[in-house]
Amino acid sequence: MREFILRASKTVTTPRFNLNDLPGSAGRMDLVCRCISNALWISNDLRRDTVIHVVLEGPDRPPKLVSFNGKELRNVSPDERNIASHIRIALRKGYNLKLGEKAFVWPGIEIAKRSFESLVKEKSGTSQLIYLHPKGKDIREVEFDENVCIVLGDYIGMPRACERLLERLKA
Amino acid sequence: MREFILRASKTVTTPRFNLNDLPGSAGRMDLVCRCISNALWISNDLRRDTVIHVVLEGPDRPPKLVSFNGKELRNVSPDERNIASHIRIALRKGYNLKLGEKAFVWPGIEIAKRSFESLVKEKSGTSQLIYLHPKGKDIREVEFDENVCIVLGDYIGMPRACERLLERLKA
Repeated sequence: MREFILRASKTVTTPRFNLNDLPGSAGRMDLVCRCISNALWISNDLRRDTVIHVVLEGPDRPPKLVSFNGKELRNVSPDERNIASHIRIALRKGYNLKLGEKAFVWPGIEIAKRSFESLVKEKSGTSQLIYLHPKGKDIREVEFDENVCIVLGDYIGMPRACERLLERLKA
Repeated sequence: MREFILRASKTVTTPRFNLNDLPGSAGRMDLVCRCISNALWISNDLRRDTVIHVVLEGPDRPPKLVSFNGKELRNVSPDERNIASHIRIALRKGYNLKLGEKAFVWPGIEIAKRSFESLVKEKSGTSQLIYLHPKGKDIREVEFDENVCIVLGDYIGMPRACERLLERLKA
């Protein structure tokens, strides 16, 4: 299986954001939607072996983990606005979750109240962890295991403490 | 230089489309915007050596050729809605163009009334022409010349006559 984890440090966790202003008041929600779209959609199909987890850390109820599973996803289209509307449904359903709880949102979509660090630690036990970094090794030279988990920062980059955690987990 | 040509056979050529309904009434304008975004934007920068040409063939004034040049583009952001709003400006400025005419739209954006076939023929004289096809040769095995022009169909695919033209041009 192939998994992606995206950390979106400014993207809102309130469902009250405006679908007409994804880059601005929603805290670069457009970027999150593009990542999901590019991870899952291929021409006329979905990558059925791929899951993407997005950790939203913006106001007002962080952290929230929204997961899209290509195997089970139904009736979602690849445009930013449609993906954003499903994230909004997820944030509405998950607004009052307590730490560790999760909720079903839509076929193939789940929400949980969970931190980036806890998710990365869990995945390091079962998958080859890869952290994408502009100064890293060329991805074309990396040999992939059967289970791969690829970690992405957003446009701001990872905080230093978090990079140290990834180092310790040998990402 | 790297160039892309996208043929969007259903995407509208009227500027009166709704920014809130890019996939539907605008004839998969979302797909066009994603292609432009993926062709030109990289993390925190633009591909300065890349141009993408989109041929719109939907109602009511086809064909229209909108070109985005990474070298000169200013103040455009990579989200679908923002790119679509610039295409709308282009279609407004180019609404009454006659065949062969072109107009300046915005730094890095131009519109012309010109057909896909005429553009492809011109490019075949100066660039290595590559036609992306699901049954084609693996792109990783292709050696690129300095000037490459990559031709893409939309979700419907190229008409047969057009594939024959590309064959004749040795794409």
